Amino acid sequence: MTPVVDFLTAKATKTEAALEHYFHTWNEVPDTLREAMRYSMFAGGKRLRPALALGACEIVSGDDSAALPAACALEMIHTYSLIHDDLPAMDNDDLRRGKPTSHRVFGEAMAILAGDGLLTMAFDVAAQSGNAAVVAEIARAAGVEGMVGGQVIDMESEGKRLSVNDLKHLHRKKTGALIRVAVRSGAMLGGAGESALRALTAYGEHIGLAFQIADDVLDVTGTEEALGKPIGSDEAREKSTYPAAVGLEEARALARESVESAISALAPFGSEADSFRSLARYIVDRDR
Amino acid sequence: MTPVVDFLTAKATKTEAALEHYFHTWNEVPDTLREAMRYSMFAGGKRLRPALALGACEIVSGDDSAALPAACALEMIHTYSLIHDDLPAMDNDDLRRGKPTSHRVFGEAMAILAGDGLLTMAFDVAAQSGNAAVVAEIARAAGVEGMVGGQVIDMESEGKRLSVNDLKHLHRKKTGALIRVAVRSGAMLGGAGESALRALTAYGEHIGLAFQIADDVLDVTGTEEALGKPIGSDEAREKSTYPAAVGLEEARALARESVESAISALAPFGSEADSFRSLARYIVDRDR
Repeated sequence: MTPVVDFLTAKATKTEAALEHYFHTWNEVPDTLREAMRYSMFAGGKRLRPALALGACEIVSGDDSAALPAACALEMIHTYSLIHDDLPAMDNDDLRRGKPTSHRVFGEAMAILAGDGLLTMAFDVAAQSGNAAVVAEIARAAGVEGMVGGQVIDMESEGKRLSVNDLKHLHRKKTGALIRVAVRSGAMLGGAGESALRALTAYGEHIGLAFQIADDVLDVTGTEEALGKPIGSDEAREKSTYPAAVGLEEARALARESVESAISALAPFGSEADSFRSLARYIVDRDR
Repeated sequence: MTPVVDFLTAKATKTEAALEHYFHTWNEVPDTLREAMRYSMFAGGKRLRPALALGACEIVSGDDSAALPAACALEMIHTYSLIHDDLPAMDNDDLRRGKPTSHRVFGEAMAILAGDGLLTMAFDVAAQSGNAAVVAEIARAAGVEGMVGGQVIDMESEGKRLSVNDLKHLHRKKTGALIRVAVRSGAMLGGAGESALRALTAYGEHIGLAFQIADDVLDVTGTEEALGKPIGSDEAREKSTYPAAVGLEEARALARESVESAISALAPFGSEADSFRSLARYIVDRDR
């Protein structure tokens, strides 16, 4: 486990330095807005999406710097989505990563605007890559055919019992699209050829699924301390989950299967992809 | 007045056709989300920002097609901002352009997501221009140093009496930045040289101010029928306005002065900029 934790820590450190840099380039920002954005942005997230973007770039080019704009943009988009998902009109959550949610601290209006601000500035940051095709891919993954669309499907599914296929469809959009584009944008900015891009895209799709199943499992088996939120909250909100759909053991098997598929997708690569192999295993073995 | 109305109508028709095209390229969108986005997107807006982007492109290149992605992106961003501004946590408005606001029709959660969706997809559309610098400029104008920041300042200024300079600062961000970037992005996509870009940027800044003052004046002198919302709503909400700060006559004089400055900025151009000259006058003479 240590090498993968080192990998994640290194990428998180690099991402946070770049995020700080971008935040500093925005001078004329009202204090409360800046504070609200920073509160959620630097709240101890795992920085998984940046690690995927930076890692994919490194696998294809040996260096991860070119992927930093995409890595930061994706983390900003992920953060905005958490702020808006937590709003009273949406999930109405009081806690996130063990801390009061944005609207509990800054009020609803400021939480909406902090989210809007992060989402908007994410595209300033993404555009710093100089690659309009990457910007478009990120927008589409975060947009109405991706994350926003998935959030709507999730909302409209509350109280319904979804089949495994419906769940996969929902999560491919709600969480999978952003994880997939993290890997893809990193690879594209690293100058990946077509076959490398295809292999890494498959990896991103498989770990996206594994990640979501593992999240659902953790909501049942995790500890409140590690998760930073009450356990069993999915069930309380009548959200469909993999354990509810197929049982805990079968859900775990499905997660492991996705991990194996992710690792198989990396077959064209040598030891340069070892970090991604370990990361795939870590995703289902983590405790938060 | 007729030529400028023809100009606006022609640009609006072109913009709406392009918006329809973009909406059609997004296939996998939940029905309610698509409906909510379309409800606000095709609600009879003036399409001022697209007209500015397309017009600026035409002035410098003779053709406006290259500016269509920016024009559509800006109108989508403008539309998202109206949806979010109207939310219960923000201005809590029931009417917009004579129709019930998004959250009154679709509920608060869907209104938030329709706004998020439009904002996100705006950057997919903007990126279709292939110009990452234009994408970055649009993001910055819409972001925390521009429109989102202006909305925060506006919120924090309610109940306070602002000076004319404070008002100008507020509106340069809240409405001015997006109008300015509409002109700039159109000019950039038309391949404007440095001096043409500088002249058009100045034009955009002056009409942005004129537009906002005219809006404030209309809130006092307009008819509910033409505006599609109750008159005097700024005063009722204790919003600072130019008429409140300097009186109605002085506010009108300030608007006319900005229009003259806008027209002066167009001096480097010949008859190809006549549409923009008429548009500047129209902005303070309109009744909605």
